[in-house]
Amino acid sequence: MTNQQLMEQDLKYIFHPCTQMKDHENIPLIPIKKGKGAYIEDFDGNRFLDCVSSWWVNIFGHSNDYVNSKIKEQLEDLEHVIFAGFTHKPAIDLSKRLVEMTPKPLEKIFFADNGSSAIEISLKMAFQYFKNKGESRPLFVSLENSYHGETMGALAVSDTGLYKDIYKDILIKTVQAKTPSLHSEEEALADMERVLKENQGKVSSVVIEPLIQCAGSMRMYQPSYITKLRDLCDKYGVFLIADEIAVGFGRTGTMFAVEQAGISPDFLCLSKGITGGYMPLSVVMFTEEIYKAFYCDYNEGKSFLDSHSYTGNTLACATANAVLDIFENENIIEENKKKIDLIAKETEKFKDLDNVLEVRQRGMVCAIELKGYSVEERVGLKVFQSALKEGVYIRPLGHVIYFMPPYIFSEEELKRMIDTTYSVVSSL
Amino acid sequence: MTNQQLMEQDLKYIFHPCTQMKDHENIPLIPIKKGKGAYIEDFDGNRFLDCVSSWWVNIFGHSNDYVNSKIKEQLEDLEHVIFAGFTHKPAIDLSKRLVEMTPKPLEKIFFADNGSSAIEISLKMAFQYFKNKGESRPLFVSLENSYHGETMGALAVSDTGLYKDIYKDILIKTVQAKTPSLHSEEEALADMERVLKENQGKVSSVVIEPLIQCAGSMRMYQPSYITKLRDLCDKYGVFLIADEIAVGFGRTGTMFAVEQAGISPDFLCLSKGITGGYMPLSVVMFTEEIYKAFYCDYNEGKSFLDSHSYTGNTLACATANAVLDIFENENIIEENKKKIDLIAKETEKFKDLDNVLEVRQRGMVCAIELKGYSVEERVGLKVFQSALKEGVYIRPLGHVIYFMPPYIFSEEELKRMIDTTYSVVSSL
Repeated sequence: MTNQQLMEQDLKYIFHPCTQMKDHENIPLIPIKKGKGAYIEDFDGNRFLDCVSSWWVNIFGHSNDYVNSKIKEQLEDLEHVIFAGFTHKPAIDLSKRLVEMTPKPLEKIFFADNGSSAIEISLKMAFQYFKNKGESRPLFVSLENSYHGETMGALAVSDTGLYKDIYKDILIKTVQAKTPSLHSEEEALADMERVLKENQGKVSSVVIEPLIQCAGSMRMYQPSYITKLRDLCDKYGVFLIADEIAVGFGRTGTMFAVEQAGISPDFLCLSKGITGGYMPLSVVMFTEEIYKAFYCDYNEGKSFLDSHSYTGNTLACATANAVLDIFENENIIEENKKKIDLIAKETEKFKDLDNVLEVRQRGMVCAIELKGYSVEERVGLKVFQSALKEGVYIRPLGHVIYFMPPYIFSEEELKRMIDTTYSVVSSL
Repeated sequence: MTNQQLMEQDLKYIFHPCTQMKDHENIPLIPIKKGKGAYIEDFDGNRFLDCVSSWWVNIFGHSNDYVNSKIKEQLEDLEHVIFAGFTHKPAIDLSKRLVEMTPKPLEKIFFADNGSSAIEISLKMAFQYFKNKGESRPLFVSLENSYHGETMGALAVSDTGLYKDIYKDILIKTVQAKTPSLHSEEEALADMERVLKENQGKVSSVVIEPLIQCAGSMRMYQPSYITKLRDLCDKYGVFLIADEIAVGFGRTGTMFAVEQAGISPDFLCLSKGITGGYMPLSVVMFTEEIYKAFYCDYNEGKSFLDSHSYTGNTLACATANAVLDIFENENIIEENKKKIDLIAKETEKFKDLDNVLEVRQRGMVCAIELKGYSVEERVGLKVFQSALKEGVYIRPLGHVIYFMPPYIFSEEELKRMIDTTYSVVSSL
């Protein structure tokens, strides 16, 4: 089997996510045969350094021996069981660990399969909390430039036009406040307060991506905004939902981004890195107080009756436990600090380039925003293609190049990622 | 570890799906230690016959040796890779097989993680198809008593009050036509035609669960309705979406339920059984014509930019291929015919009971509707508890008891499932 043969077969059948398929008339679709550690390898024997963690999910490398061994063990016992009326040890262990790792008072967990579904659960639960108390608060508030997923509820609270605009006739109305990633913190907070004041009694929750709006061009902001937003949410009696689907599990330097703000949200949504890049799983964590609003006699009809068939999937929970083992055993958050410093140091040189507007970094995520290119030029695509020829896989968002490597990258691999990209960008 | 210890730990942390958690003050939550074949086993050594396929997902038994071996093989090569710009052989093989198995002209596939996400994709794609051609058709039509999932788009086209009513203020408006499972075929078709006529130019798609409205109390209807609905959709120029998330992969006796109607939908949504009950995966299949409406130069902005991080998950695709291997190698659809006949024969006796309103069956799904009980009595719960004491796990929907066993049940296991339930129901 060659790349060409597999690509041709693929294109007969598959519509790929977030892709204009016509692009593949000119850009080869790459069939991956093998992944190991930091590298993925195609059917023609080319190896690529996976610098975007296969869409922000991979943490400890491809086909990780330890994770593999834990999945194999689990396969012998139980692959999955219905999670209503029944439970299993991998889910219980995972829940206990997550509750211990996350800020108090996040004490309860609801499971789902992907990030979008987690967002939907947090929105529905926030809405129903008030409904159970006799109030209808159908309005959700989010930030400009936000991205929370693709299902119609998650898309409704998103604000990235590329994904949302075309669907506006089939989405419920939500409100977006100014984002601290594009405005000053004071301006963003003032706008949020205006929104919450004008809509008092109608808003059930505010949902944000803490510290980095990832799909929104990796725009970043300070933890202090989150601390003050927490106060605003308390003042106006609305829930704060932290969407750490992309930034959770160490991406921003701390295990969870909200830690840097010294606060706890009312809902915390996690996915992607939770299984180390192996398979879909998501969780929504929330407070005991929220849990209690649904706890009553069955016939009162106030429970939260959401479900997906594979909720609490046993294999996925076992995988997540293996990932948490590695975090603990190898002291990853501490070890990453050296890598974060190295990325900061090595990307300094981009700032001197004429076609670079800004280099921004938060923990293990670093973005380089280019300037002077029109949208139609698709400069990001050119950077992707040139770097790929050198065996370095990056996937720019428009004219914003970013690095979000798995944590197993060695110093040499980090340098290669940065230097190859530098050589591409500086010769554009 | 005992059941009691694990249950206590679980209840400290986990909010289970589709569950009023207060019920667990009286009903033990059961921690499962091991699953093998038709049985699941708890930490106290009790074994239960899994007669609902762990929420309709399991097909070839728990911890199936063949499926396990294929997952282990895949783990050595590649667990997952980003599915934009890259691809892998398990996804290509699976797509080819699905296209060959399903009615023409379903020729293209989009991947997702769960059933709800698949429904959302089909709705968004149907809407965008018309949008790409300059029309806005924001209305979706579904059937009374339908259930299509939990995310806000999927819930909007659902009609089961238990899951939907509380959220109506945060859902877009959709229209439900009379269902053939509760009205005559003529009446249902006439109502559908009325809806399509009154909303001409506004409706992009009609979504149905072919043959069985599963979450809607396992209500069933004839294939002829689907054949005629296909004509109506053509007449009014709207897409037909077949939600075979629950009924696909042999549940109704044929591989896919729409086969019995001799038609092809424009979109086919599959999930649950696709991985044999191992892990989340879903696909949306559609026609070449639909695919082409999104195929153009990138800068025209008409592509379908949906994505979930784990879209096309490699492990899940490899699992699905293993499941299809078993279907082929063991001639499952043909072999199931004997089991379907046996279920029909053995459930005959329920019809003579005074508290049974109806016994209905479609392929490997059989429902027994009880009569004479108020909602508050929760008779289904009593049936569940009594059968469980006998080692038989069923999960009634209110007063409707149903069987949806994995296909590996032996004749003896099918008989035990039915006879135990009979003894419980007849002594209520």
